[in-house]
Amino acid sequence: MTETLLAPLDAAHDAFAALFHPSSVAVIGASDNPNKVGGRPIHYMRAFGYMGEILPVNPARDVIQGLPAYAGVADLVACGKTPEAAIVAVSGDATLEQVRLCAEAGVKAAVIMASGFAETGAKGRERQQELVRVANAGGMRLVGPNAQGTANFAAGAVLNFSTMFMEVAPQDGPIAIISQSGAASVMPYALLRQAGHGVRYLVATGNDADLDACAIAAAVAADPDVRLLLVYLETISNPDALARAAAIARARGASIVAIKAGNSARGAQAAASHTGALVGNDAAIDAFLVAHGIWRAGDIGELLRAVPLYLQDHAPGAGRTVVMSHSGAVGVMAADLAERHGLPLAALRDDTLRALGAILPEFGTANNPLDMTAALLGKGDMFPRVLEALGADPAADMVMVGIPVAGPGYDVEALARDAAAFSAGHRKPLVASAPQQSVREVFVRHGVPTFVTEADAVAALAQYAAHRERMARVTRVTRVMASSAVPAALPLAGNGLQDEARSLALLAEAGVPTVPHRLCGSASEAGAAFEALRASSAGAAVVVKGCAASVPHKSEHGLVHLRLTTRVESEAAARACLDTLRKLEVREPRIVVAQMVKGRHEFALGVSVDPMFGPLVMIGEGGTLLELRKDIVTLLAPFTVDDVRAACARLRVAPLFTGYRDVPALDLDALASAAVALGNWALRHRHAVRSVDINPLMLMAAGEGVIAVDAVVQLQDAKTQEAETP
Amino acid sequence: MTETLLAPLDAAHDAFAALFHPSSVAVIGASDNPNKVGGRPIHYMRAFGYMGEILPVNPARDVIQGLPAYAGVADLVACGKTPEAAIVAVSGDATLEQVRLCAEAGVKAAVIMASGFAETGAKGRERQQELVRVANAGGMRLVGPNAQGTANFAAGAVLNFSTMFMEVAPQDGPIAIISQSGAASVMPYALLRQAGHGVRYLVATGNDADLDACAIAAAVAADPDVRLLLVYLETISNPDALARAAAIARARGASIVAIKAGNSARGAQAAASHTGALVGNDAAIDAFLVAHGIWRAGDIGELLRAVPLYLQDHAPGAGRTVVMSHSGAVGVMAADLAERHGLPLAALRDDTLRALGAILPEFGTANNPLDMTAALLGKGDMFPRVLEALGADPAADMVMVGIPVAGPGYDVEALARDAAAFSAGHRKPLVASAPQQSVREVFVRHGVPTFVTEADAVAALAQYAAHRERMARVTRVTRVMASSAVPAALPLAGNGLQDEARSLALLAEAGVPTVPHRLCGSASEAGAAFEALRASSAGAAVVVKGCAASVPHKSEHGLVHLRLTTRVESEAAARACLDTLRKLEVREPRIVVAQMVKGRHEFALGVSVDPMFGPLVMIGEGGTLLELRKDIVTLLAPFTVDDVRAACARLRVAPLFTGYRDVPALDLDALASAAVALGNWALRHRHAVRSVDINPLMLMAAGEGVIAVDAVVQLQDAKTQEAETP
Repeated sequence: MTETLLAPLDAAHDAFAALFHPSSVAVIGASDNPNKVGGRPIHYMRAFGYMGEILPVNPARDVIQGLPAYAGVADLVACGKTPEAAIVAVSGDATLEQVRLCAEAGVKAAVIMASGFAETGAKGRERQQELVRVANAGGMRLVGPNAQGTANFAAGAVLNFSTMFMEVAPQDGPIAIISQSGAASVMPYALLRQAGHGVRYLVATGNDADLDACAIAAAVAADPDVRLLLVYLETISNPDALARAAAIARARGASIVAIKAGNSARGAQAAASHTGALVGNDAAIDAFLVAHGIWRAGDIGELLRAVPLYLQDHAPGAGRTVVMSHSGAVGVMAADLAERHGLPLAALRDDTLRALGAILPEFGTANNPLDMTAALLGKGDMFPRVLEALGADPAADMVMVGIPVAGPGYDVEALARDAAAFSAGHRKPLVASAPQQSVREVFVRHGVPTFVTEADAVAALAQYAAHRERMARVTRVTRVMASSAVPAALPLAGNGLQDEARSLALLAEAGVPTVPHRLCGSASEAGAAFEALRASSAGAAVVVKGCAASVPHKSEHGLVHLRLTTRVESEAAARACLDTLRKLEVREPRIVVAQMVKGRHEFALGVSVDPMFGPLVMIGEGGTLLELRKDIVTLLAPFTVDDVRAACARLRVAPLFTGYRDVPALDLDALASAAVALGNWALRHRHAVRSVDINPLMLMAAGEGVIAVDAVVQLQDAKTQEAETP
Repeated sequence: MTETLLAPLDAAHDAFAALFHPSSVAVIGASDNPNKVGGRPIHYMRAFGYMGEILPVNPARDVIQGLPAYAGVADLVACGKTPEAAIVAVSGDATLEQVRLCAEAGVKAAVIMASGFAETGAKGRERQQELVRVANAGGMRLVGPNAQGTANFAAGAVLNFSTMFMEVAPQDGPIAIISQSGAASVMPYALLRQAGHGVRYLVATGNDADLDACAIAAAVAADPDVRLLLVYLETISNPDALARAAAIARARGASIVAIKAGNSARGAQAAASHTGALVGNDAAIDAFLVAHGIWRAGDIGELLRAVPLYLQDHAPGAGRTVVMSHSGAVGVMAADLAERHGLPLAALRDDTLRALGAILPEFGTANNPLDMTAALLGKGDMFPRVLEALGADPAADMVMVGIPVAGPGYDVEALARDAAAFSAGHRKPLVASAPQQSVREVFVRHGVPTFVTEADAVAALAQYAAHRERMARVTRVTRVMASSAVPAALPLAGNGLQDEARSLALLAEAGVPTVPHRLCGSASEAGAAFEALRASSAGAAVVVKGCAASVPHKSEHGLVHLRLTTRVESEAAARACLDTLRKLEVREPRIVVAQMVKGRHEFALGVSVDPMFGPLVMIGEGGTLLELRKDIVTLLAPFTVDDVRAACARLRVAPLFTGYRDVPALDLDALASAAVALGNWALRHRHAVRSVDINPLMLMAAGEGVIAVDAVVQLQDAKTQEAETP
């Protein structure tokens, strides 16, 4: 990992310092009333220990919340008190002027709270752009507009007007919350604080006009005390910055969990061909987050589920989990849930089983889930001895202790103490689940990650182990800045949909094996092509197809003639195709004569170039029902053959790769090579290519390769290519 | 619904009365120590208001917990105090004798707490059977052994030794918890009580030797105060009783939510053919629960999720939900979540939108999710007026109010009061979500179902609406006692796997259209068959296949010859098949000559007869990749064509039924008729049939039918058929 990639945005470095560690903060539109937007930040900074200077600005008052007030930014400057940061809490109409004054005065960063900008339409967007232009011209950076603001509770620097901090008191801690929405920033905050976790940064960025959520995530990711970033996004405004945030966090072993809510319209527009439509923008986002080791949560509950495990930070190994309880039902349910979440149950070693049998004679055929009746009932030192045996077993990575009930006879204090000691000693994750509030409190007090139900406990363990494994896999520098790591994008001749011959030629250039074929302009040329293909293919049949960019759906027009075995048939088919194409008003009608390829199974391979994330490659079962069966996986380019192998293992038809019934193993290596080649080609030409749709891609038996039999490439318009090519 | 079906089990009626409303309870093995198994029930009954007589039995003491103790059951009888119910809390070895004494004395029901019976193996199972035999011989019914016991908190009748009631005090309420596991009974109890809900019945049945969990569910379902039954099962020991419980509950509008944990080995044994293996026992359980309107929860959290909605009992209509919040993010997330859970968002009527616009001018293009900033900030009477407008809209069935943050300026009390008034007035479900504990408390106090996250709120609404819709669909009496509603089961000639000709004959008898074919013993017969089939099919090609019950996988042995168009070819194929079969040591080798049928798409239709639930019919996409693609739905026989249509709409390939791309709409009517016919036939012959595997079932265009092209029927062994046929 190079220095450059891990450094925060240099240009914005001063701005982040000004926001999170300001020596002074002007509050423009300051209010004496702590329940008003212009009053709350002053109240918070005074209440939460801010040590810098608070400079209220309000022309109507001399004193605000006990502090001397200033009539305007000019007065501050005149007094030699140029603020490092500013909160602009005036109305939308008055905002631009105040931003100008701040920028001219040398303020480094400002939080703009007013709404009425891009979120209201085109005119608001113009006003917003003007705001940024004016600020940046003076060297000032903005958060917002329409922002609830920033907060660094370690410094008491609360440039934020949420009422939540009135209700739920802050406390510094190892968590950062970065959100485009104010509500989505304070919901996890409230839940974390109610659970006793500390939060250092809480930032709600609003319209993301200048310093956006992704850039701020990259900035706070560099704080060595931050162990976990929780991010809420409605649009990934700045993928490179988010990738940088992920790289910075990963380099320190810190984790990012993100909600990406809603669906982006931009991604949908990008999906032109039917393969593209399948892939969709949400698949691109998924692939992007996977590629950068960010865990995607579906809701606020999932965002927070594994927090105590992240903070405890024990290595989850391969995630092989031991479930123990004094209830058979908890074991059964936990086993069901583990399967549902893909969490492997540990297969304990024989010597571990013998050790357990010695501690708990009634075990006999001790197995996982372990029934711990006696040990959990606190008979002597059985519980710590059982834990010790598990700690010594390299096949046991994590432990879940289910305590469905405790009462007289249970030494909950001792159980919690032993559980915590195990986890600390062996540095293996251990969680507890208990429906009784009183039981959970004891475990939480001992620092054990504790859940209400075994379902939550299992889900948290599964997420934690899978996320850490994913982070470990994301090691290649190419992943960090994929789009800048490849050579400059190249334009390609042509516009829009390409005909089959051109599409196949482009794919061959990309390195995807294509069907032997000839492009012909007449029936006699088709006849000659038939002879040539027959000669080179030991007599395989041929296919004759009409070839015109304007007629991509050939079958519907009777433009596909299969299994032709004579020259006469081939010429007749060619004539029929040419006639049809002329009727369809194709100017220079042509045909493709191709070898008839019999594959073992039809797959499909496609690309959809997402304007935000670049080429997304789709691999799956092909044929006409592709879009119904939806047995596909997607990968963001660039990727390796190993990535393809891992992804293809998730296909429903994956058993075909190892041989299924009468069908021999298919050539996964060749499929993976073709996919990698296609992804790299699409990345090089990412401003030129819109989509690629190869269906079918015939898969042969292992060692015999793959062949693209039918393909449509769609290019960007030449103008777009030109404009976007760097 | 007939009287008979809804009546509780008459034979056990007295036993249930004795368990839940006993005039007296003997505690055999009574202890003075309330922390011992034999002491706890006494302590509980005294603490929780039991008004009947508690009769401690312990030969070593005169007084137990302040009550006069008796030396044995005989002493009780001698004193004229024959108990109505008994708790047998002695060791496993001593249990049988005490059960015998109780039964002889005329005790009506006993809870057997000792373990060491069927759960320990074959010998324990024998001891358990003896226990039941001895009890029943004296007219006594048992709960257990290995049972934590029963409790009716309305009567203080706690024949239950869980420590949980020491920790979390009971309170009567409209919920019943019935569980085969002690732990799984007290976990939901603790969570419900901590959330303020009352629980009337709590029963943990243990080994289910006599009165089992299903029978007890049917008994408590008849209590008119019970609105919700929560059931935990590891095996559905008594499907008829559970079906009866569901019918009794449905007749009163009460609901059942059940966890079925683990997988049953019996179901797996029943799945012999590959279709059967796909269906599996868990699919049978799903189908059974669906058929009886029981909601299946995956874990304890899901079991409890929608409890407040069930208890409030407002009709969810079509589930069309209005989401309102003062946060755009909550609206976006709720919309995402609604889609994930299949919850429809309401399309508000134009006049509703106009009314909303008049109340909240900034709405403009007011839409669902509704952004309620001003209204939720308590400006005047906006919130109740908005609710009023929604209440008047018949397109709005349910409402979710998301309150991500509240503080100064929010009148939470008024919001909660207005929300509660809306729900009470319009009888429409309304839920709130709020991360702040303080906010939730206010809503809960006003009786509004309240959740921590919008994810939980949406999931609960979705479950409640879908469950109520399912309950409404389950109206046919056949569903209640499916297995007794059809004519007596008929034996079928034959054993095990049937050859293709016999299989097709059985299917034709069942009413499934089968391919025209002839069974032949020689090449010349095959030649004649070719001529006959050609003549009747206007010259279609034929298929020649080897036909032997012992060789079900014909392709693997080269026993399938397709697309034959001459008599000579057909005879040659027949000779080849006969030779191969002879080499495979088939005694009387035969061939099937069948018309070559070209369908529009290959489906599969199968049956697996579950020993517990009867015939489970599988419908899905066919072909050799059936088991990989797993695009199947399952239905428990009997069912209607409408049931098939609804189920098939869930297939990934469902668009084929309305026409997809070049393929015309397929004949769903014919598929549904074939499935219904097959299901009814399998039900009539449920003791004779093990499985049916039709693959492919060729689907033609709408109006052109379906044809079973290849089929294997597997019958039970003749002995089994005999033994099981009533």
